[in-house]
Amino acid sequence: MRRNKKERQSLLQETIQHNPFITDEELAEKFSVSIQTIRLDRLELAIPELRERIKNVAERQLDDEVKSLPVDEIIGEMIDLELDRSAISILQIQKEHVFSRNQIARGHHLFAQANSLAVAVINDELALTAKANIRFTRQVHEGERVVAKAKVTHVDSHKGRTRVEVLSYVGNELVFSGEFEMYRSGNEH
Amino acid sequence: MRRNKKERQSLLQETIQHNPFITDEELAEKFSVSIQTIRLDRLELAIPELRERIKNVAERQLDDEVKSLPVDEIIGEMIDLELDRSAISILQIQKEHVFSRNQIARGHHLFAQANSLAVAVINDELALTAKANIRFTRQVHEGERVVAKAKVTHVDSHKGRTRVEVLSYVGNELVFSGEFEMYRSGNEH
Repeated sequence: MRRNKKERQSLLQETIQHNPFITDEELAEKFSVSIQTIRLDRLELAIPELRERIKNVAERQLDDEVKSLPVDEIIGEMIDLELDRSAISILQIQKEHVFSRNQIARGHHLFAQANSLAVAVINDELALTAKANIRFTRQVHEGERVVAKAKVTHVDSHKGRTRVEVLSYVGNELVFSGEFEMYRSGNEH
Repeated sequence: MRRNKKERQSLLQETIQHNPFITDEELAEKFSVSIQTIRLDRLELAIPELRERIKNVAERQLDDEVKSLPVDEIIGEMIDLELDRSAISILQIQKEHVFSRNQIARGHHLFAQANSLAVAVINDELALTAKANIRFTRQVHEGERVVAKAKVTHVDSHKGRTRVEVLSYVGNELVFSGEFEMYRSGNEH
């Protein structure tokens, strides 16, 4: 649907606030305008380009520090963390992540991003996956950027179990969802 | 339980037939005897050592050829395949597969072995994972060898869906189980 400029710019601002990792291409498609129009809109609204937006988020101090594993063992780049609450990471799908035959991302890489985020969000020095229930809801292709969002939905410190829901998106499209049940040692340090 | 030699050798033969990838250490523990005793038993029974047994299996022509992906994109070494029926692969857990902190294998590697086996068993040029329900039932450590066994439990060629059950073992212990629901294109070539 075509909108007037004021309407569009207001929605654009809202959309980027809601999903800072959306590309200009995705925005152009969403608002049925050219990429150039989106760029001009961003200039007028003083919204930095995607690369800058990611850098800003990445440079922001994480609210919390990862406890359950060294940060470099997280698959994808972690950009937000509140222990035992929520976490966000970004994985750029590259050649090594896809089937050579059709350039579709292999399931275990999307799983690895989500699973390591579910480990990282746990406020404990030991966190291991007990079970998971996962769905691949849309094929992901080379060049796409997957934003995974983890939410802790239940902590049972008595039993040492934590439930984490992870939803992964390309733009606004859900590509993966998973419910993880995590063991934890019970020692919060 | 201690058994006499004849009993033990008969059970040993049966055990190795059932699980050719069991180590001498695991056998010694199972039968409460020394590793040396197991070696002598194998000599008397003319059962080759583990390394040879694996080589024999690996050199055997696979019954079928993988269709859904190039063999080198399978995680682990595939040693048996009957398309749309069953498949077996072995993954040796090495340093790159474990958490640096505790040498426990990371879940996504066990998942990758099982998931790629579930893809490989499909008799179709396109196979993608729709969903999976998985459990990690025992921690796996660096140096252990994981044998994954996939069984096709249901083919719905009308809907283009196939169900694959994968059970992964270290010795006789179940370490991972998964139910995979796979998409297929429906073109068997």
